[in-house]
Amino acid sequence: MTRKKRIEDLAWFGGAPMFGSVRPIGQLAMPDEKLFFDGLRSIYRTRRMTNNGPLVQELEKRLAALHQVAHCVAYANASLALVALLEIAAGGRRGEVIMPAFTYVGLPHIAQWAGQRPRFCDIDAVTHTLDPGAVAAAITPGTTAVLAVHQVNSPCFIEELAAICKARGVPLVFDSVHGIHCTYKGRPIGGFGIAEVFSLHATKLLNGFEGGYVTTHDGSLAYALKTARNFGIVGETEVAGLGFNAKLNEIHAACALASLPKQAEIVEGNLRRVRAYRERFAGIPGLSWVLYPAGERSSYEFALLDVDRDWPVGRDALVDLMLRENARGRPYYSPPIHRSTHCPDFIDPPSLPVTEDLARRFIQMPVGELVSLDDIAMLAEWFAFVHDQGADIAARMKAAA
Amino acid sequence: MTRKKRIEDLAWFGGAPMFGSVRPIGQLAMPDEKLFFDGLRSIYRTRRMTNNGPLVQELEKRLAALHQVAHCVAYANASLALVALLEIAAGGRRGEVIMPAFTYVGLPHIAQWAGQRPRFCDIDAVTHTLDPGAVAAAITPGTTAVLAVHQVNSPCFIEELAAICKARGVPLVFDSVHGIHCTYKGRPIGGFGIAEVFSLHATKLLNGFEGGYVTTHDGSLAYALKTARNFGIVGETEVAGLGFNAKLNEIHAACALASLPKQAEIVEGNLRRVRAYRERFAGIPGLSWVLYPAGERSSYEFALLDVDRDWPVGRDALVDLMLRENARGRPYYSPPIHRSTHCPDFIDPPSLPVTEDLARRFIQMPVGELVSLDDIAMLAEWFAFVHDQGADIAARMKAAA
Repeated sequence: MTRKKRIEDLAWFGGAPMFGSVRPIGQLAMPDEKLFFDGLRSIYRTRRMTNNGPLVQELEKRLAALHQVAHCVAYANASLALVALLEIAAGGRRGEVIMPAFTYVGLPHIAQWAGQRPRFCDIDAVTHTLDPGAVAAAITPGTTAVLAVHQVNSPCFIEELAAICKARGVPLVFDSVHGIHCTYKGRPIGGFGIAEVFSLHATKLLNGFEGGYVTTHDGSLAYALKTARNFGIVGETEVAGLGFNAKLNEIHAACALASLPKQAEIVEGNLRRVRAYRERFAGIPGLSWVLYPAGERSSYEFALLDVDRDWPVGRDALVDLMLRENARGRPYYSPPIHRSTHCPDFIDPPSLPVTEDLARRFIQMPVGELVSLDDIAMLAEWFAFVHDQGADIAARMKAAA
Repeated sequence: MTRKKRIEDLAWFGGAPMFGSVRPIGQLAMPDEKLFFDGLRSIYRTRRMTNNGPLVQELEKRLAALHQVAHCVAYANASLALVALLEIAAGGRRGEVIMPAFTYVGLPHIAQWAGQRPRFCDIDAVTHTLDPGAVAAAITPGTTAVLAVHQVNSPCFIEELAAICKARGVPLVFDSVHGIHCTYKGRPIGGFGIAEVFSLHATKLLNGFEGGYVTTHDGSLAYALKTARNFGIVGETEVAGLGFNAKLNEIHAACALASLPKQAEIVEGNLRRVRAYRERFAGIPGLSWVLYPAGERSSYEFALLDVDRDWPVGRDALVDLMLRENARGRPYYSPPIHRSTHCPDFIDPPSLPVTEDLARRFIQMPVGELVSLDDIAMLAEWFAFVHDQGADIAARMKAAA
């Protein structure tokens, strides 16, 4: 532990980094070691490695139960699951997929692989999710899907979006990568829209190293998704629709199965960290935290710090300072997709005032199993120091640039 | 072991299957157990699980050396690597990819995901690879790539195809899933065309459970491929081109690294099986084996049985009979893609006489680590029995249908 007493002590100015190793922003919670290696040994012995093996089937069964849906279809990752889902939803048409721009940069690419154009819509300032009014205004006869994204701090306006999509005959799908363990009006995320897509990436709550899955009540959609993930082949010969190799294999299923029993413990750890952040940072002016919805179950996966615009050191400079200390803060969804190089050239970037304002405000703070409560206390001290010395630090950073 | 003495002894007619467990057609050679579990434990401890980790980088280095190329880019699987490669090769155009139809059914899907139309060309009757004359005739200004497939029994007409593609300004890429360990005029497959794509699937020579990789001499192409596999992102923020999640993760890299030292041993086993098939089947009329090229290194990955058209039991019925015995024979590339449901609806299936003739002939016989030399001796006895009783068997199968 290295306390900062002078500006020269900051790693940015040549001091020793506050942390000897990186404090990341992903969950990186390992599966139960015994369960995981037992699963691996069984794979090794049976040589049943991939192609819809017994562990994938077991995982799908347990996830369907967890999300209270009829079907779960495991995929190699959430991106490919979304590509397949949007391609199926479009039913052979080339049109537009309505999506937010305050989210993961891969979404427009996903629409393009599925043969669709992304259409960005603005979001609500409190929930950070698609604004139903903006969605209703953006739907045209060429809309092939609405792709709504649940955020860590809130599920989407599910009922409002569902009503709009139903009235207009547009499939509603959810990117639910941040929806594991969360509820909407007391019901688990996973059973809404025509389907919801989840991630099993190592940085997520449920760790399969890589992987993803789709939940749906619709048996024929589940069948189409199973077909698409396996080259368009069902059984030995039958072919339906466009396929690729997006199968989850047994190793990742073993990992996810060994992670399932740890979910409650991980969420508890997340909540402890989120609370520690709030308590430790309470005295520092101009900082606040994005809140989680009251009365709903949440995963407390991220700690999102809201930095006042008049803070002595700007948000982006603050992140630069943090990175040098081995604290892997990140400007949260900044720049937003429509203002980034991920916006396809053929799109004239729309004006999305709420998105643009939010994208200037937050820092995604270090979280996950590799961040201790002591680390958070140190970060609080560090932030207080940077605040107090802020004017000098900003001036010296500017001079150095 | 169950010898067949009467037709009723055949599993198809209710007898006990010849094999108690399935004899498959994939390699299914497990990696070195100690190396693999050591790798897994190191991943578990370091928590470096994916996103271009140290094992992926090590694997890429070793595979580049193995194929004597400047660059190797690992992918989640060979299908996705081909999608990315064809998308990059097209450079934003929507056109046609020339490919054979006597190959893996996924190829037309791959072209379509990359925004291209498949254009099927006929093949050479001996090598089973694209006929250079047919390719030259099929190239138009709308051709965005020639996708040639090395076969287990022969590499492509590499020099001829390269000369044609160079003269016409068309990128030449190879599906080299069957090219690991093989040579063309003494040089390893991997360094030809603009790039070659390999598989690490469990059924292939080099087992990563799942996975694939691209080899190329072209540094800017390698860069574009690294970008595409990671959502279009290079480093922290830079974006170039269309991306998705097609990263190989550390588990698969660990598996492939633990499989590398076993390659020579696996190939020796394959050669022993191929030789046993030839010796044991030598006395049975109307059967012959597809030969491997003399003077080149081969992997002897498949054993391809050529069944005379006037054999007493037809090729497809023979495969049915085998499957009931738990011998997982397969009609080899039959039906060919252009005559199957994998041919996109918008294509008028061309006439490909060589392809259509070859697709009626071969059985892909059980191979890999789970097939012993005794199993092969039993298969030979069984084939001799089926040949001798062929007329009766065919009549009784027909009557039962």
